[in-house]
Amino acid sequence: MKFLIIGDVIGRTGRNALREFLPSLIDKEEPDFIIANGENAAGGFGITKKVLDELLSMGIDVITSGNHIWDKKEIVQFIDQEERLLRPANYPPSALGRGYGIYKKNDKRIAVINLMGRVFMGIPLDCPFRTFDEIYEKIKDTVDYIVVDFHAEATSEKMAFGYYVDGKADIVFGTHSHVPTADEQILPKGTAYITDVGLTGAVHSVIGMKIDQPIQKFLTGMPVKYEVATGGYLFHAIVVEKTDEKTEIRRIKMKKE
Amino acid sequence: MKFLIIGDVIGRTGRNALREFLPSLIDKEEPDFIIANGENAAGGFGITKKVLDELLSMGIDVITSGNHIWDKKEIVQFIDQEERLLRPANYPPSALGRGYGIYKKNDKRIAVINLMGRVFMGIPLDCPFRTFDEIYEKIKDTVDYIVVDFHAEATSEKMAFGYYVDGKADIVFGTHSHVPTADEQILPKGTAYITDVGLTGAVHSVIGMKIDQPIQKFLTGMPVKYEVATGGYLFHAIVVEKTDEKTEIRRIKMKKE
Amino acid sequence: MKFLIIGDVIGRTGRNALREFLPSLIDKEEPDFIIANGENAAGGFGITKKVLDELLSMGIDVITSGNHIWDKKEIVQFIDQEERLLRPANYPPSALGRGYGIYKKNDKRIAVINLMGRVFMGIPLDCPFRTFDEIYEKIKDTVDYIVVDFHAEATSEKMAFGYYVDGKADIVFGTHSHVPTADEQILPKGTAYITDVGLTGAVHSVIGMKIDQPIQKFLTGMPVKYEVATGGYLFHAIVVEKTDEKTEIRRIKMKKE
Amino acid sequence: MKFLIIGDVIGRTGRNALREFLPSLIDKEEPDFIIANGENAAGGFGITKKVLDELLSMGIDVITSGNHIWDKKEIVQFIDQEERLLRPANYPPSALGRGYGIYKKNDKRIAVINLMGRVFMGIPLDCPFRTFDEIYEKIKDTVDYIVVDFHAEATSEKMAFGYYVDGKADIVFGTHSHVPTADEQILPKGTAYITDVGLTGAVHSVIGMKIDQPIQKFLTGMPVKYEVATGGYLFHAIVVEKTDEKTEIRRIKMKKE
Ligand SMILES: [Fe+2]
Ligand SMILES: [Fe+2]
Ligand SMILES: [Fe+2]
Ligand SMILES: [Fe+2]
Ligand SMILES: [Fe+2]
Ligand SMILES: [Fe+2]
Ligand SMILES: [Fe+2]
Ligand SMILES: [Fe+2]
Repeated sequence: MKFLIIGDVIGRTGRNALREFLPSLIDKEEPDFIIANGENAAGGFGITKKVLDELLSMGIDVITSGNHIWDKKEIVQFIDQEERLLRPANYPPSALGRGYGIYKKNDKRIAVINLMGRVFMGIPLDCPFRTFDEIYEKIKDTVDYIVVDFHAEATSEKMAFGYYVDGKADIVFGTHSHVPTADEQILPKGTAYITDVGLTGAVHSVIGMKIDQPIQKFLTGMPVKYEVATGGYLFHAIVVEKTDEKTEIRRIKMKKE
Repeated sequence: MKFLIIGDVIGRTGRNALREFLPSLIDKEEPDFIIANGENAAGGFGITKKVLDELLSMGIDVITSGNHIWDKKEIVQFIDQEERLLRPANYPPSALGRGYGIYKKNDKRIAVINLMGRVFMGIPLDCPFRTFDEIYEKIKDTVDYIVVDFHAEATSEKMAFGYYVDGKADIVFGTHSHVPTADEQILPKGTAYITDVGLTGAVHSVIGMKIDQPIQKFLTGMPVKYEVATGGYLFHAIVVEKTDEKTEIRRIKMKKE
Repeated sequence: MKFLIIGDVIGRTGRNALREFLPSLIDKEEPDFIIANGENAAGGFGITKKVLDELLSMGIDVITSGNHIWDKKEIVQFIDQEERLLRPANYPPSALGRGYGIYKKNDKRIAVINLMGRVFMGIPLDCPFRTFDEIYEKIKDTVDYIVVDFHAEATSEKMAFGYYVDGKADIVFGTHSHVPTADEQILPKGTAYITDVGLTGAVHSVIGMKIDQPIQKFLTGMPVKYEVATGGYLFHAIVVEKTDEKTEIRRIKMKKE
Repeated sequence: MKFLIIGDVIGRTGRNALREFLPSLIDKEEPDFIIANGENAAGGFGITKKVLDELLSMGIDVITSGNHIWDKKEIVQFIDQEERLLRPANYPPSALGRGYGIYKKNDKRIAVINLMGRVFMGIPLDCPFRTFDEIYEKIKDTVDYIVVDFHAEATSEKMAFGYYVDGKADIVFGTHSHVPTADEQILPKGTAYITDVGLTGAVHSVIGMKIDQPIQKFLTGMPVKYEVATGGYLFHAIVVEKTDEKTEIRRIKMKKE
């Protein structure tokens, strides 16, 4: 089974990058299953039904998300209808949407679980470690693969989670920082892990957004409207291949200036 | 010299409370100088020119603010024009607006300094302690009274500031928590101090806002639009009287269900 | 039923205040049940077995706590043995200690629940709102009174919680800020509520600690060892009296310079 | 001019990694100037005089640091004596130690500036952007190279800073996350940039520390003592080569299981 996993897709520029690079990458890698984090896919903040459909039409099987999932108001109208869109499973039970799904593909049953870290996130979430345990107990006997998008700020929480589920999850990939990390690895009990896949979005940007706006915010303390940076784009992803013999994880970086 | 100081005025309900209680209170107390924190005066978030004028027309001499000062977009168009509106002085120098002013009233020169704490505030501010020192050195020989609105979350930062400027400032009043504290006191070197004056706004509310909305936010983790609570209102203020002989500080609470 | 509730007791100075004021207050008020928050009772940080016994010997029935509960290392050796010591119930299930207890006194069964807010607390806690619900469902039919120590930083979370349990809990008192609030009230459905009872500790102090130390920390950014302030002391408490006819809440402040 | 830059060195395991890999790397790369971040070099927390001397004796020219600089108490006794040890320059002026230095090497004058981000750091620091500006104005005409260790949590702050000083600093390298990022690049105006160099420390670890300890902390909410992980080690660094014609940046990763 071969997974292609794409990190936070940032606005139109990120979607342009997908349109540019994804078709040939699919041809070349022939992944069985594709996941992308879409929390910033619409204008850099949240996701709309239209953008969701655009991503799914590109061959992406499941869209995960994170703290920005609620940014576009229309989300509350369609999040419960779309099984292929996930929000972190450790939102309280009364939150809209679903936190994991089981998807059939090529005769395999693949569970994708979306979780969010709590350190520095400022959101009243349930414990992601125990939420994983609960879901795992429910699904472990009925699925062939378990893939987790752990959307978090603190590297310590991300790595602790990776080790915590090592041998239970097949893949743990981090998102949220919008910067790719160079620590892709197979943990001791077999889980493929990376702290952050990195953004798919503008090259010349501060985590996908126009450069001057965050600088202004840091300099003045005044709130600044953030807009998606345009121009050349970066595409970051990982490919994880899992066979009976071994597991491999590989970073992919493509760029068009 | 007698000061009447009103904490965070929350939306229309807070302005109703002012209209109800302020005229008779002015008649009764005959304050020389009136200050109110207006950061939540317009719809609970920020302040507009219209609301500012409304507050000033009620006899308030200076409007201070805090982290919500920028919430209404039009603020950037008038904050530089209005000397009687302050934003925290420890915003970086390139922020719009002014952080202190010197006002003449009854033959006295009164400096009002607005500062913001940094603990838990999440805003890239300069040090409020050293900002006070800088302003103090500039103005100390030219003013008769120094009054500080220290807008902050952490009680430790508020009290540390109070003691830091004890004997230099005449009054340090805290704002931001929207809950009145019962610790009004004269510090050892003579500064009149209170950790928080408390809100002027709705009685049945969570810090001035509708009750169900913050509860929903805590229960679901999803963002919730906050609206100003209506109905009966509370008015919280302090009166500080300073004569050659002594300084007195007194809390005032008025309520209309 | 008459409850006497004391907020955070800060170190030896706070215990001195208890020794000074509590006996005569007990004589005068004749409370049926006494609660104190002991998270800072030993040297300002945590609680030891010796200090716990000292507090209990003064007639306090239950000691609640908060984020500082683990500060003294020996706590892990006795917290599971002492039913009258509580730590917040929304620590994860695998934490040591207990989060609530049911205590018999004067033929009544009184449940005391300790909870901690999450905003700004930086601790991976479970949802205090839902933790209350779970405990409430278990105990509601077997107890006569429910009292909650809600140990939290943000006033919004404290008030939201108060309204959330209004009519279910008999008393919700806040702790942690070490500053008494002047918002004691009976909520619409009958719960007696105060945002913070305030410290029992040194008069001239920054939330109970020596004044210069927090000031140094704010000025230099370097870590500073905090020590309990000595000298004159303050005693803050509330008295809540609940009869079939009505509920009353009253603040008590006593001071010895 | 060729720079070898090593990120956070974590405890004895990290120093073992230096001893293993640094000599041959120096032979191979022949760097003109070597920098390492030493904030975790002694037992994972802070730095001692002995450890500092050990690092300097390995050929490292300058040791930078960050939020952990004060963790070992003895630091206050030697930080003012050692010109080759830096703490972030945006600590308030009254903090001990120095925030930048100018070092002569191979007939060149190299300024090393240490700065710390403020987002999520919880330390009352001055603005790192404006602190850079002040230092830059003082030194720009007297130095040949400017290298900045920007020690920060938030990727947005790190990248914003990189762009802010693009063309002024020769190198901006990030530290603190303990995870290497794969975004090394030359910014449009010529500054060599990476968001995080990554740790030099234990392979099987959570950011250099034993795995079970952070997991326990996340699961129980109780404080846990962190210890440096042992066993195999990772060495992460960057090499930046700057000539009149061009600037190159390259990541180095070496591992011994
Ligand atoms: Fe994102
Ligand atoms: Fe995110
Ligand atoms: Fe406010
Ligand atoms: Fe505020
Ligand atoms: Fe406390
Ligand atoms: Fe506390
Ligand atoms: Fe570090
Ligand atoms: Fe650090």
